[in-house]
Amino acid sequence: MKYHKKEIEQLDRTYRLNLVNSVSGIKPANLIGTKSLENQENVAVFSSVVHLGSNPAQLGFIMRPQTEVPRDTYPNILESGFYTINHISESFIKKAHYTSAKLKRGESEFKRMKLEPEYIGDFFAPFVKESHVKIGMKYQESLPLSNGCFFVIGSVELLVFPDQAINKLGQLDLEECGGVGIAGLNSYYGLQKLETFPYVREDEIPEFE
Amino acid sequence: MKYHKKEIEQLDRTYRLNLVNSVSGIKPANLIGTKSLENQENVAVFSSVVHLGSNPAQLGFIMRPQTEVPRDTYPNILESGFYTINHISESFIKKAHYTSAKLKRGESEFKRMKLEPEYIGDFFAPFVKESHVKIGMKYQESLPLSNGCFFVIGSVELLVFPDQAINKLGQLDLEECGGVGIAGLNSYYGLQKLETFPYVREDEIPEFE
Repeated sequence: MKYHKKEIEQLDRTYRLNLVNSVSGIKPANLIGTKSLENQENVAVFSSVVHLGSNPAQLGFIMRPQTEVPRDTYPNILESGFYTINHISESFIKKAHYTSAKLKRGESEFKRMKLEPEYIGDFFAPFVKESHVKIGMKYQESLPLSNGCFFVIGSVELLVFPDQAINKLGQLDLEECGGVGIAGLNSYYGLQKLETFPYVREDEIPEFE
Repeated sequence: MKYHKKEIEQLDRTYRLNLVNSVSGIKPANLIGTKSLENQENVAVFSSVVHLGSNPAQLGFIMRPQTEVPRDTYPNILESGFYTINHISESFIKKAHYTSAKLKRGESEFKRMKLEPEYIGDFFAPFVKESHVKIGMKYQESLPLSNGCFFVIGSVELLVFPDQAINKLGQLDLEECGGVGIAGLNSYYGLQKLETFPYVREDEIPEFE
């Protein structure tokens, strides 16, 4: 199948949404947890978290335009300055997916989807107890994009993960963590570790055929 | 395991690099193909491609700081205005990984790693023939980040993928495409489709336990 730009523009809206959301490849499956200054908790699925740097440790994600429907995650991040990123595991993909629902104002996805909020130390925002990998984030900045989205950047303040999921080199085993990926808007994939290659040095490149 | 920000800063450099690169979850595995105006071809592995929007169809990715070592991808994109994003499949993960080598100036990773450049119609940049999903991209803008990286944004000009990998809804089956994900800097994971959920409507949320 081959589509040019003009043909993509003329596709049925749902078909185009599914297709263009699929073409970037597998996406990380995370829940972002927040809390308003009035202690209203919120949690929502995001598939756009991206690594920005290790020192300082920074992650980014894409926030949809805020004009369409009232969303709580972004206002909560801006007013409190904190949020959490929590890996979705195979054991709760359905609950996680349904956090994308537009609930009534003031209703918490934690309660409706029966996910348990967890507070770690004095970190302001709620983590998702069911997650194996939990990241406490501090908001840094938000870059407006031309299509109305925002690229939200934060620093890693706290990292929590299972002891047995990390090796001596600091590599986290996502299969051991029950990690999953998302394709498109709503398909979930399990992960099977294939291979780990060394850091590539020019004089150690094998001969390829 | 629990690390606070201060402890992350004090970790051994390689351990921190591996760990912080792992914590965002599974990442899409893509090769970005470019060509200079002098027809020098270049291809390199990127794990930071992210969906920005479907109409107009836009993707972004993170480009490392350009000060460290000479890299060809970014200058080629800026001078030619075009690049390609090509899914890495399980059948060539090793070749794809080794495109991260710092080759001698002027040496093509296509030739060294024995990957085949493919030109489709009059699109300027080379695709990777071995890839199942190929995206022709037009450069739009580049947002500088505080850590020296750039967030590079482009529009989807051309989409090529196998007929049998897409369903009637426009959903691409990444397992059917032999798609893989990357964890951290250098671990590759196969994908197994688990489940596809419907678009969530408030009145169709199941009762969770």
